[in-house]
Amino acid sequence: MISTDRRELYVDGCSAVQLAEEYGTPLLVLSEDHIRSRCRELRDTFLSRYPETRAAYAAKAFLCLELCRILEEEGLCLDVVSGGELYTALQAGFPPERIEMNGNNKSPEEIRMAVEHGVGRIILDGADELDLVEQVCRELNKKANVLIRISPGVDSHTHQFITTGNLDSKFGIPLAPSIFAGVFRRILSSQYVNLLGFHYHIGSQLHDNESHLKATGILLDLIRELKTSYGYRTAEINIGGGFGIRYTDEDDEKPYEYFLDPVMEMIRQAFNEMELPMPAVVIEPGRSIVGNAGVTLYRVGTVKEIPGVRRYVSVDGGMTDNIRPALYDAQYECSLANRDPRLPGAPQATASETAPAPELVTICGKCCESGDILIRDTLLPAPRRGDLLAVYSTGAYCASMASNYNRLPFLPVVMTRGGRHRLVVRRQTYQDLISRDL
Amino acid sequence: MISTDRRELYVDGCSAVQLAEEYGTPLLVLSEDHIRSRCRELRDTFLSRYPETRAAYAAKAFLCLELCRILEEEGLCLDVVSGGELYTALQAGFPPERIEMNGNNKSPEEIRMAVEHGVGRIILDGADELDLVEQVCRELNKKANVLIRISPGVDSHTHQFITTGNLDSKFGIPLAPSIFAGVFRRILSSQYVNLLGFHYHIGSQLHDNESHLKATGILLDLIRELKTSYGYRTAEINIGGGFGIRYTDEDDEKPYEYFLDPVMEMIRQAFNEMELPMPAVVIEPGRSIVGNAGVTLYRVGTVKEIPGVRRYVSVDGGMTDNIRPALYDAQYECSLANRDPRLPGAPQATASETAPAPELVTICGKCCESGDILIRDTLLPAPRRGDLLAVYSTGAYCASMASNYNRLPFLPVVMTRGGRHRLVVRRQTYQDLISRDL
Repeated sequence: MISTDRRELYVDGCSAVQLAEEYGTPLLVLSEDHIRSRCRELRDTFLSRYPETRAAYAAKAFLCLELCRILEEEGLCLDVVSGGELYTALQAGFPPERIEMNGNNKSPEEIRMAVEHGVGRIILDGADELDLVEQVCRELNKKANVLIRISPGVDSHTHQFITTGNLDSKFGIPLAPSIFAGVFRRILSSQYVNLLGFHYHIGSQLHDNESHLKATGILLDLIRELKTSYGYRTAEINIGGGFGIRYTDEDDEKPYEYFLDPVMEMIRQAFNEMELPMPAVVIEPGRSIVGNAGVTLYRVGTVKEIPGVRRYVSVDGGMTDNIRPALYDAQYECSLANRDPRLPGAPQATASETAPAPELVTICGKCCESGDILIRDTLLPAPRRGDLLAVYSTGAYCASMASNYNRLPFLPVVMTRGGRHRLVVRRQTYQDLISRDL
Repeated sequence: MISTDRRELYVDGCSAVQLAEEYGTPLLVLSEDHIRSRCRELRDTFLSRYPETRAAYAAKAFLCLELCRILEEEGLCLDVVSGGELYTALQAGFPPERIEMNGNNKSPEEIRMAVEHGVGRIILDGADELDLVEQVCRELNKKANVLIRISPGVDSHTHQFITTGNLDSKFGIPLAPSIFAGVFRRILSSQYVNLLGFHYHIGSQLHDNESHLKATGILLDLIRELKTSYGYRTAEINIGGGFGIRYTDEDDEKPYEYFLDPVMEMIRQAFNEMELPMPAVVIEPGRSIVGNAGVTLYRVGTVKEIPGVRRYVSVDGGMTDNIRPALYDAQYECSLANRDPRLPGAPQATASETAPAPELVTICGKCCESGDILIRDTLLPAPRRGDLLAVYSTGAYCASMASNYNRLPFLPVVMTRGGRHRLVVRRQTYQDLISRDL
């Protein structure tokens, strides 16, 4: 939880200035209090209210051993999309039966790893994945619980890169009768897999439930048809994630129940009408758990005035630790953590007792690339070398998408909780950078 | 050098199929023959033809220990932009005096490292960098050779992210008299630095020499003015890089002399007129050395037909090892290395004895993200699971910008030369992925 005494910024009661001094910059601070409070919201509004529901955290948003342990404690499941994510979860001692495996192109090795360790669900993304799963299950004499990921053909209102449910998508199995029926029958009749139901995922960072409702309607139509045609009784539905968070005032963040209550009501009605027991319902929140938990702390370096054009404020990280502005034109808020800190959503800086009049500046990174801009045009009170800049809402898709471009080392991750802090991922060293060189 | 016997693809005489079998996929193959031949072209057309010239390879395009050793042998210098790049060069035994340090926001630690090890040049990017350099030089009792990076205000015709010489840029010192004159005088009078001359960099992946000529004209005007006003005799000019390569037929690749000859002529004339000895001239080629040396080999996995829409061919890498299509809308060519291989620039596949009729496909990666598309709409002869896909021209800004998104491990780098191959950077392991976790 972010707070301020108007002189300094605090994360879960820890001084950002002291964190930066102790751990160096750039630094990703993750509020464990925030993460746990989001998990509690999920429990209060969804998991505890509806029986047979699960929330599988989408590991791709951010993953480390310590986060796995926290999520396990909080009763969440885990949605992994690769052998690397699965490995991390297993190393953290995460119960494999609470792991679900997604991915549009799982390798034979990844499928073997999933079956061998007994992950709870494998989400089949294409017809030929069944062959791979069957082969492994045959060899290991195991039976896998699977869902079929469908491509519902719903267009969501988000950046095209993170739209995943529309028809023109690499994900899922299209509902075209010429394709779907054959795949379904093969999976249903396989002796190596146990088909529990269906999965869809519409897209990320949504503020409108329309796409979820549309996709749920399409899925329920399918479920009705499969009951009529094959007598198939769907036991589980996974409606993916996509629950948007607030980055800036542009984002109209909604509570979980805004998305989930109407979906659950649709499912309840449809299963009632079909005279089927209510299925298990699974969601895959990622960004909405960790996104707003993150604050990246940067040290301000060169400040460059281009007369009549722009004032560039350089920080000691950039597109290497946050590619989202360059990749998706993502918007962020920031403030000076060491003086005149503002909370996310607070009005832009104005002249005050403690700070000079705000100036329009552009925050850029230290990469040798013009596209390395973190925030274009924001008001800050005369930032200068040595200031500590806090960029908010960097918990999701920042560290997880980080690169070593320009051979900048990966930043460390510190978790805070109730006034205490601890390093959970150490900073990469220069030695690390050449450790794979022969 | 890439070749084919129409059944299989070869890099420097090494079978791509065998490389993939031996080292696994995804795999970056770097043709050492190509790299050395590009260095030879640089020597023949520039370094040997003009005295007092240097070519400093732009490390950000791609760097590893082995490449440093090759470039050193080939007589190149090195342009580094961070402590990590400098560290890598030093560990490879690269002579520090042949290293030049760039960067818009060098940290005090990076500057100390550069001065301590005695790098050949520090390119000052802003007024306040002088303070940092002076402080370190004072402490270490050293004097640093510096250039001033100017911002010539020239707009180049390339992707806006990699345009770096225009006025609205985080790089360099604007030539506005209110700013430049003061900075110049301070640097000139500093007892801790030796101002050799000036640096500009216009942008990347250029096919037109217009921007270089314009920027050179602006720089020569400045040099004349500084001679008149201060009697300052410029001894060195660094005109950056930006020499474009061929990715697809859209790219009209030009030889080095197309860019360099007219620039050298302009400089010669101007210095003749000023009655000054010809200055040292330095260039910073990066992409043009390694870009076309790289071939990424992927194994084809899921092939998904969406009737009437698109056929998606998934490979076992993607935006993690090549972010350029998602980030810059960059275009690439590819072919099937295990059957019907085509050389870069060869016509798209047609039906032949060895291959079925070509199909329009989209090559996508395995990341859980719709934007993870490598090549949209290319013709390939019915790619199927197990095929080996070669994507060409991936030597620059692919591995160097790689991420562990979705916890996909970094790919290995193999170098080939005259029919032999060797691993120069090993594949990242799952263990590596959690090695910084506490």
